[in-house]
Amino acid sequence: MKAAASPSLGVVETHSATVFDAARPLHLRSGATLDHVEVAYETYGTLNEQRSNAVYICHALTGDAHAAGYHDGDDKPGWWDNMIGPGKPIDTDRWFVVCANILGGCQGTTGPASINPATGEPYALDFPLLHVADFVEVHRALARHLGIARFAAVVGGSLGGMQVLQWAMLYPSELGRALIFAASSRLTAQNIAFSAVGRQAIMRDSGFSEGKFLSRGTAPRKGLAVARMMAHITYLSEEAFQEKFGRQSQRDELKPNFGVDFAVESYLEYQGQRFLSRFDALSYLYLTRVMDYFDPFADEGALDALIAEPVRFLVVSFDSDWRFSTEHSRRIVRHLEGAGLPTSFREIRSSWGHDSFLLELPDYHATVRAYLDRAAEELL
Amino acid sequence: MKAAASPSLGVVETHSATVFDAARPLHLRSGATLDHVEVAYETYGTLNEQRSNAVYICHALTGDAHAAGYHDGDDKPGWWDNMIGPGKPIDTDRWFVVCANILGGCQGTTGPASINPATGEPYALDFPLLHVADFVEVHRALARHLGIARFAAVVGGSLGGMQVLQWAMLYPSELGRALIFAASSRLTAQNIAFSAVGRQAIMRDSGFSEGKFLSRGTAPRKGLAVARMMAHITYLSEEAFQEKFGRQSQRDELKPNFGVDFAVESYLEYQGQRFLSRFDALSYLYLTRVMDYFDPFADEGALDALIAEPVRFLVVSFDSDWRFSTEHSRRIVRHLEGAGLPTSFREIRSSWGHDSFLLELPDYHATVRAYLDRAAEELL
Repeated sequence: MKAAASPSLGVVETHSATVFDAARPLHLRSGATLDHVEVAYETYGTLNEQRSNAVYICHALTGDAHAAGYHDGDDKPGWWDNMIGPGKPIDTDRWFVVCANILGGCQGTTGPASINPATGEPYALDFPLLHVADFVEVHRALARHLGIARFAAVVGGSLGGMQVLQWAMLYPSELGRALIFAASSRLTAQNIAFSAVGRQAIMRDSGFSEGKFLSRGTAPRKGLAVARMMAHITYLSEEAFQEKFGRQSQRDELKPNFGVDFAVESYLEYQGQRFLSRFDALSYLYLTRVMDYFDPFADEGALDALIAEPVRFLVVSFDSDWRFSTEHSRRIVRHLEGAGLPTSFREIRSSWGHDSFLLELPDYHATVRAYLDRAAEELL
Repeated sequence: MKAAASPSLGVVETHSATVFDAARPLHLRSGATLDHVEVAYETYGTLNEQRSNAVYICHALTGDAHAAGYHDGDDKPGWWDNMIGPGKPIDTDRWFVVCANILGGCQGTTGPASINPATGEPYALDFPLLHVADFVEVHRALARHLGIARFAAVVGGSLGGMQVLQWAMLYPSELGRALIFAASSRLTAQNIAFSAVGRQAIMRDSGFSEGKFLSRGTAPRKGLAVARMMAHITYLSEEAFQEKFGRQSQRDELKPNFGVDFAVESYLEYQGQRFLSRFDALSYLYLTRVMDYFDPFADEGALDALIAEPVRFLVVSFDSDWRFSTEHSRRIVRHLEGAGLPTSFREIRSSWGHDSFLLELPDYHATVRAYLDRAAEELL
């Protein structure tokens, strides 16, 4: 049965909660504090009486709280609607699913574009630098707000998977299973290079105004679009680009100019433009930098808490992913297995590259479904 | 013996020649004409009496006429000094070597930054679109100017290799051997995507001034630097990035910010800045577009001339090259061998990616040396 045949969640809403305030500020890894943290989140399904059926979804770099179902009036569902819903691999008939926009984001959760209470202006580059562990603290605060002490599973792809790994390492008692897709525990120099050039495109745009563009009424739109176009190249495999576009022309005659001649150029231009309407350049800087610095296995005794209270892991990679290749997943698996933790690993065949974790691929969905079925048998 | 131990050519000079003029204009593939074409070139070694020992070097995207030896006062030699010189694989004790800046370039040969005789202003985007075949016509005109009817070998890497292939297909009687390194006969959608994003970074820079920046005193410096930084990522293999930089920090403490934290960021920034002093944004647009459209085997009967008058081919790829992977070279070889042409193919092991063709790698240099030794035995 393909998930597309399953009924949708229907109309859903984004909620908001204040999870840290002056009386109980958020202490960040960097030593800075935030006196007010607002979180945008959505939930799907129903929390059972024992509160044992909660699943937390961690989103990737440019995701948001709207993972599934439809916002009233929208014709497109949330970003992971093929994965989450009634009868889908993360089955909302069974699980109570929570997804929140991450700290530093720009979709309703406090981030660098939010107003700094100390100045009444947007934080911009005065926003403190973040760490994946800070995302986790905000997820946990939201869980407390919702009355959830432990998740049956925490699930995420790419930067989402990094949050899952970090959560399991820091607070293993709070999750039963950790599902980590297309992620990395440590970016390569090439990974950092791509992010660095994207940030340079943004920061060199004259509209960036040293980060103060929100107050000054400018915007680094060109830089942000270029950063997004470049990132998109790394999200698709070479094979996927070839299948999707080949050298197909946009125009009747292949008479060269510097505009949008090839279909692939049109696609990238569209992706770059569309991104401008939904994403903030400051969040892009902050969140990509978080990924560059993530290196959780580097700390002495990093796995001690987990060894004392093991979490079950499912690690999934995609064979055509060249942003975070299977080698990245294998490194995670080596660390976990080396510590004797119960770890399942699957490399899924897919021609779609890094973006595969967002797609409805039968082997992938079947793997997730089966893994969560076992969790349900134990818990529900 | 390593080439580094060989003596250098010493001091060399760049010369200039007018190879097309109003009386004999250059007719381009596009149908446009250029009434004045100036070529910057260098020669190394001595042309023998029979004029049988000439070797032509075709440079890559951002190369120039200064392939070997030292310009007076410089402390760095030409871009292929490890390959060309006395006792080196392209041995100037034996060969008369010619290298010229290509049409559309910005190092002394007519290009979009040159003055349009019709307006007295730089051509900018009024410069006609180019084709690899146009580069070849200018190479041939320079050859006529130098009194060379036939080259013992024509040699080039990347875009240089594309020129070699095109020359052999159009005028096989003019070259004995064609040496094609790290090249492609047809860019993939991903290749085009990288070039397209680089062009977008340039054209969206407010300093681009719709291409008229030379007349207006602005310059798309930020966009050109970003384009170069991104391109550099594709010139090195992931392995080379890791070996060269790893996650090495630039600063004492790994305290994140948005500046240049990692060594790889410092390297890219340096590459981007350095490029500004030697390259023109318009040439970057024109020359990358030429590569996007190159597809010489697509034409019916494309190999007929070559089949009638076979050229010997040496095709070399590098196993870590992900810009033009070995698959690109294999496609060239399949076409040539399919037409019964004498073709040698070597994939060289190297961890340095696309840039390998510029490096002094023993297997690579030995292959080129041996191939040209056989040419010398026949000709000299």
